[in-house]
Amino acid sequence: MALVCLSDFEAYAKKHLPKAVWEFFAAGADESCTRDENLKAFKRIYFRPRVLRDMSTMDTRTTILGSEISFPVGIAPTGLHSLAWPDGERSTARAAEATNTCYIASTYSTCSVEEIVAAAPAGFRWFQLYIHRKRTLSEQLVRRVEALGFQALVLTADLPYTGKRRDDIRNNFQFLSSIKLKNFEGAFQDEDCSEYGMPPGSIDPSVNWNDISWLQSITCLPLIIKGILTKEDAELAMRHGVQGIIVSNHGGRQLDGVPASIDALVEITAAVQNKVEVYLDGGIRTGSDVLKALALGAKCVFIGRPAIWGLAYKGEEGLRKVLEILKDEFRLSMALAGCSNVSEIGRHLVQHSKL
Amino acid sequence: MALVCLSDFEAYAKKHLPKAVWEFFAAGADESCTRDENLKAFKRIYFRPRVLRDMSTMDTRTTILGSEISFPVGIAPTGLHSLAWPDGERSTARAAEATNTCYIASTYSTCSVEEIVAAAPAGFRWFQLYIHRKRTLSEQLVRRVEALGFQALVLTADLPYTGKRRDDIRNNFQFLSSIKLKNFEGAFQDEDCSEYGMPPGSIDPSVNWNDISWLQSITCLPLIIKGILTKEDAELAMRHGVQGIIVSNHGGRQLDGVPASIDALVEITAAVQNKVEVYLDGGIRTGSDVLKALALGAKCVFIGRPAIWGLAYKGEEGLRKVLEILKDEFRLSMALAGCSNVSEIGRHLVQHSKL
Amino acid sequence: MALVCLSDFEAYAKKHLPKAVWEFFAAGADESCTRDENLKAFKRIYFRPRVLRDMSTMDTRTTILGSEISFPVGIAPTGLHSLAWPDGERSTARAAEATNTCYIASTYSTCSVEEIVAAAPAGFRWFQLYIHRKRTLSEQLVRRVEALGFQALVLTADLPYTGKRRDDIRNNFQFLSSIKLKNFEGAFQDEDCSEYGMPPGSIDPSVNWNDISWLQSITCLPLIIKGILTKEDAELAMRHGVQGIIVSNHGGRQLDGVPASIDALVEITAAVQNKVEVYLDGGIRTGSDVLKALALGAKCVFIGRPAIWGLAYKGEEGLRKVLEILKDEFRLSMALAGCSNVSEIGRHLVQHSKL
Amino acid sequence: MALVCLSDFEAYAKKHLPKAVWEFFAAGADESCTRDENLKAFKRIYFRPRVLRDMSTMDTRTTILGSEISFPVGIAPTGLHSLAWPDGERSTARAAEATNTCYIASTYSTCSVEEIVAAAPAGFRWFQLYIHRKRTLSEQLVRRVEALGFQALVLTADLPYTGKRRDDIRNNFQFLSSIKLKNFEGAFQDEDCSEYGMPPGSIDPSVNWNDISWLQSITCLPLIIKGILTKEDAELAMRHGVQGIIVSNHGGRQLDGVPASIDALVEITAAVQNKVEVYLDGGIRTGSDVLKALALGAKCVFIGRPAIWGLAYKGEEGLRKVLEILKDEFRLSMALAGCSNVSEIGRHLVQHSKL
Repeated sequence: MALVCLSDFEAYAKKHLPKAVWEFFAAGADESCTRDENLKAFKRIYFRPRVLRDMSTMDTRTTILGSEISFPVGIAPTGLHSLAWPDGERSTARAAEATNTCYIASTYSTCSVEEIVAAAPAGFRWFQLYIHRKRTLSEQLVRRVEALGFQALVLTADLPYTGKRRDDIRNNFQFLSSIKLKNFEGAFQDEDCSEYGMPPGSIDPSVNWNDISWLQSITCLPLIIKGILTKEDAELAMRHGVQGIIVSNHGGRQLDGVPASIDALVEITAAVQNKVEVYLDGGIRTGSDVLKALALGAKCVFIGRPAIWGLAYKGEEGLRKVLEILKDEFRLSMALAGCSNVSEIGRHLVQHSKL
Repeated sequence: MALVCLSDFEAYAKKHLPKAVWEFFAAGADESCTRDENLKAFKRIYFRPRVLRDMSTMDTRTTILGSEISFPVGIAPTGLHSLAWPDGERSTARAAEATNTCYIASTYSTCSVEEIVAAAPAGFRWFQLYIHRKRTLSEQLVRRVEALGFQALVLTADLPYTGKRRDDIRNNFQFLSSIKLKNFEGAFQDEDCSEYGMPPGSIDPSVNWNDISWLQSITCLPLIIKGILTKEDAELAMRHGVQGIIVSNHGGRQLDGVPASIDALVEITAAVQNKVEVYLDGGIRTGSDVLKALALGAKCVFIGRPAIWGLAYKGEEGLRKVLEILKDEFRLSMALAGCSNVSEIGRHLVQHSKL
Repeated sequence: MALVCLSDFEAYAKKHLPKAVWEFFAAGADESCTRDENLKAFKRIYFRPRVLRDMSTMDTRTTILGSEISFPVGIAPTGLHSLAWPDGERSTARAAEATNTCYIASTYSTCSVEEIVAAAPAGFRWFQLYIHRKRTLSEQLVRRVEALGFQALVLTADLPYTGKRRDDIRNNFQFLSSIKLKNFEGAFQDEDCSEYGMPPGSIDPSVNWNDISWLQSITCLPLIIKGILTKEDAELAMRHGVQGIIVSNHGGRQLDGVPASIDALVEITAAVQNKVEVYLDGGIRTGSDVLKALALGAKCVFIGRPAIWGLAYKGEEGLRKVLEILKDEFRLSMALAGCSNVSEIGRHLVQHSKL
Repeated sequence: MALVCLSDFEAYAKKHLPKAVWEFFAAGADESCTRDENLKAFKRIYFRPRVLRDMSTMDTRTTILGSEISFPVGIAPTGLHSLAWPDGERSTARAAEATNTCYIASTYSTCSVEEIVAAAPAGFRWFQLYIHRKRTLSEQLVRRVEALGFQALVLTADLPYTGKRRDDIRNNFQFLSSIKLKNFEGAFQDEDCSEYGMPPGSIDPSVNWNDISWLQSITCLPLIIKGILTKEDAELAMRHGVQGIIVSNHGGRQLDGVPASIDALVEITAAVQNKVEVYLDGGIRTGSDVLKALALGAKCVFIGRPAIWGLAYKGEEGLRKVLEILKDEFRLSMALAGCSNVSEIGRHLVQHSKL
């Protein structure tokens, strides 16, 4: 059957991935309320479409941190792509490069950052960072990605500890020994790597705003904070000199009970007032979701699980198809809403019955 | 089993039409949220019925653009009626004529406008127009319908491009070669007519408010804009001298995520202040829906899919039955709400918890 | 299985009554939205219960129009009781008498008012009236019930025409020829009595506020208007000198899309300001529903379908059981809410998130 | 299968307990609306989590009435534990002692208070009291628990009569003669003990605020009132010199239609202004529920049915597991919300769309 929309890819992935792998990617924390809310919240936002405008020339391009991308959808950082497709993040990188969009590679990649760059040398990439208890491990990684031409660091801020994903516990989720977190090859020899491929408790729960200065001292890369859900933290981020904010609830995988990211976006863009770029991940399933997020102030959105579904379907080709579908849907939504280019998208385009 | 309400006709049509044909008519865009919302929104509107009024004489007649119709429900423009019943729009025209109501014939008819007029010479008709990239094609069509006695032009404003209807893509929807868009007979010979019977991209996406003047320059017919969902566009329409507005989201087939048409109606009638007539299509399933729309300011409503279901049941006879049921239900709803004629229907009759 | 609550009786009746009879009693108009809303609306009302009050002596008695009843629940007028239990309204009358509450006998009774009185001579009864096109028929009926000791007339105001109940049309609902509207015995000989036992269109749709004076001129009985849903009509009723108002939507059987009666009650008791008594029917299923209605200003409530279910179970005995359950539940709800007698029930007892 | 969250224990208990026993513990009053609302209400409360705070040291300890507990979750008073596990409340006491939290033993225990103390001598315990019609019975019980080192009395205020639990009536719920309310051993010899092990109507429905003084005159123990749902009663409780309030609707087992306890908590903590401690039971299923309750002003929460499920799984071990899961989840929720100790939890942490 033809796969015509992202949920078709979801159905495919659910059917073809091993159960424990599917559940790992699908999992939300605890009761998965926030994971599900991420989708439902988009349905409470209504367009105010304008008609009888010249839509003969459509332009979906935009820029993020000064770089042009073909449309405002990038690849969110998710781990363990080799579980979805043998070639892993190499395929992801190639698909993003081919689509001319941004790929945020994860610390938890199953290909090394060097392999990722080799697979798609011309790609536009950011690197997602968790700060390790052994700071030197993180420092080395930052230096590697800076040297490799990654164009920004994305610090994940919402994971002092890993959220409770019930299915992973039930499945005693362990991936095949053939799959490794390649960025840390050799770092944890003889250690117990049972927590998603790293020694339990590897990520430093003491990380706080003061560590921003440390990061800024070891790299010239722009810094983006991922996982902010309140205006208070958005203001702190700006005060600490970051270049961007990703409004995210980690796909509902960390604290269950936080708002949908699209609901949190509103207060954050109001507070940020365009002083830094604001992005969003969580719940994007159609091109009209992208349009809603941009109307509410996001400069770009990122897809997590849908990218995995694309990989699970056919690796690079599958993910390209996912991205192309989103791009076509986004372009069509723009046209039907009366916007021929991204700069015409604004708050006036939607009505949002707040949480 | 007796068919006693419109949803009985829906069930009949779903059971008897070929799957791809059923899905073509039933389709909404993307996730069909707006299509479904069109119905749900009516349920959020409550009557304030008045009792102990003399309801012995009931009068459901009204006028639209000065012409009397037997009750305020007309036939919305939908295409490809021959897919539902062999005789196609000829049956539609006859049923509307017999019921003494208004039929808006579609550009996408499978009978020519001449055949439609021949089938029901005394019928009251408007013509729905898409503007073709080759303007002469549209101009010729306008001149033909004006000469044939159609009494208004209805310009569809919400389709610079066709919405994404997933089932049509999955079904690779193509109708039988025996079915043609008869209004364009001979126009696209040897061309690929795979987009619902026209060459892909035939409809001009550049159409904008300036084209209203062009239309007004080639015809004396009153002009109605269909597909307006905001007060801003309603005001623009009035400024451009149109005679009427159809509040419509194209049955949820264009931009998914726009409000139900009955929800959009409120702000538009408030803005229009009776300066032009406002109509509505989308979600009408019972006579009480008609009454709610009129209470919120619509002069008349139009039915789309229910007309198709009537045709699918028994052609002209089936559609007449659908119209008669709606008329009886509307009359009864009026009486039970305490209105013996249409002029007594007003905003006081309903409470509407706004979106 | 023990029947412990009203919905157990509903399940019993659904299982044991002939399908068409069940559907006749269960039917709402059109899509039955209002019928279902009648129940759902009670769920949106929350108690503010008070604790640590002396609840050792509970008193559920109240008065309506000056007469004492054992608890504030009476029998609403519903027709055709012989369809539920052979003995028909005789059983109903006996159960009400035994429970010491008020029974509103229906014009559409299958026992004559004389038979009803004979069955339960000491009962407290009102008579529900539809005004017939032949006014003498109604006048005679009024004089009969006044002479028989009925203590009030209840004029149904919301039925200029009968609502559209789809199942009755599908079932071509006709009751056995052995079942007759006994109050009109001999009145319609050789006439077509296909509309629920009366000639079609018997009820006069011209009835209006002026007819109140006529009624008042032919009887000394107090007059109650049933079927009022707006404060405007409540005010008109008071101006026309009625003694009571029953807030009712006819069990959702007339105009579909009107509010739940409990939702309409709020604005009406606010307007009436205790100048006349206000009652309610529609959606009462538990003793706590009764308590909510009284907290919102009703002096008494009436049950329609639950009375039928009781009859269907075991005639008089079944209905007594229904009434006893409701009384026990009401007494318990009062105690748990901190009210030891009816006069302590008031608006402070509930919070109501208005429609 | 591993039991990883409280609802896993629920599923286990439902599967393994005899039907009537399961239904006794699961029952809500009447339609169980409030029982279900207790859970749903938590889902309407959203966190405002703060990120990038040092979460390396987590401390879940708090105090209630001056005593330290390992985390703010205790065991609510529920009766008849021997129905869930042969060892009954002895197991409960041991699990609470091992976890270092507070156990509120019920008047309806199937072990005597002496047996409870003997089973877990070092445990921190309160005693839940119903006041018996024979006051001496209650007085003796109070003196016994005071002598045994229980540290507070919890007076249940919302049960002048027992709520109507339909399943118990249907099941004619009677527990085995081998199971006794041990606190009253010998007290009701030759009496009919068919109401949950006591003579019907044993609990005194006349109990009111004046009885608080009586209780205070016979014991030095701090007094906590359980079952308050309004600010008015919270103020009365403070005026009568109580030391604490448990916001509770008795697990939805008393008056159906009252708000969820978490919804009632808001107005009560606002009224109490920290003058006495406020606790909550009802609907706690995850650690994030605990965090929400504390954010809205509760000093501690208590679990009822989840404790039973733990017992039903494996007695003391099962309940310890339930408590450990809740503690781990609470600690993780705190960390993900940005609170490293309980004192950092406050109203700012949540947004609550009020009832």
